[in-house]
Amino acid sequence: MPEIRRLIAANEGYAAARAGVADPRPNRRLAIVTCMDARIDVFAVLGLNLGEALVLRNAGGRVTDDVLRSLALGTHVLGVDTVVVMQHTKCGIAGRSDAELQEITGADLGFLPIMDHAAALREDLDRILGTPFLDPVRVVAGFVYDVESGEISDVVRADRD
Amino acid sequence: MPEIRRLIAANEGYAAARAGVADPRPNRRLAIVTCMDARIDVFAVLGLNLGEALVLRNAGGRVTDDVLRSLALGTHVLGVDTVVVMQHTKCGIAGRSDAELQEITGADLGFLPIMDHAAALREDLDRILGTPFLDPVRVVAGFVYDVESGEISDVVRADRD
Repeated sequence: MPEIRRLIAANEGYAAARAGVADPRPNRRLAIVTCMDARIDVFAVLGLNLGEALVLRNAGGRVTDDVLRSLALGTHVLGVDTVVVMQHTKCGIAGRSDAELQEITGADLGFLPIMDHAAALREDLDRILGTPFLDPVRVVAGFVYDVESGEISDVVRADRD
Repeated sequence: MPEIRRLIAANEGYAAARAGVADPRPNRRLAIVTCMDARIDVFAVLGLNLGEALVLRNAGGRVTDDVLRSLALGTHVLGVDTVVVMQHTKCGIAGRSDAELQEITGADLGFLPIMDHAAALREDLDRILGTPFLDPVRVVAGFVYDVESGEISDVVRADRD
């Protein structure tokens, strides 16, 4: 299992060098929801340091039931009040239908494909703001990250106040 | 919205400096499933570079339906064959019951709390190996990351071969 051994070896250097951050509550009260895509290093893209933001990732950077579960804890246990949903260009679930993705994967699932980023982001932000137990969230924003240029576009924002 | 502006400003420097990676398929065929915890910089912890691994994150680093959806795409569209589930010490959902987390959050959800990391990791790896549409996964491993020391423990591994 050479890939597993390589991960463990890399960690030895990191563990020796890192600064510990004791508090589990992100000190910028932020949660970032983004895609699992291998070309996104969230800390680097957004200039985040350890201890500043929760990071949630799945296929597409969509607000799923699992994201709501995670944000319930993020808000009520960990003090989050700002959520950024960051989708990206050249995403594998953009421009494909559920039927096509079901055919490719053999999985009879809803894949939450994205036909239009602005519409998908608005839908996802609305889902956060419309979920009663996420009432502590005050500000939401939707970004699109360009995986070729490295730049983000600030597509949509909303707040409760 | 000062936190939103700060994220955008940080990105400007990153976009100018980064190296582009065109291929969406992770070149180490890896997917890492881990917790949203703000103290985990996955790239740094595991020595990953851009383009090497998909990263999936939720509360606890649990294998949920959303993770299975993401891994369906990760395997069949993006070529993943190795999955690492990395949970961590001092996790907010460890040692608490669903009833307690429901009381704190006001959300009537199953939170997938962790009573024992070895048992939770085995359950999560079994769920991956037992999902027919994830047949392309050949190797799975379960790590526990120590958020105080920065070290990982290599708790459990399995392969199909």
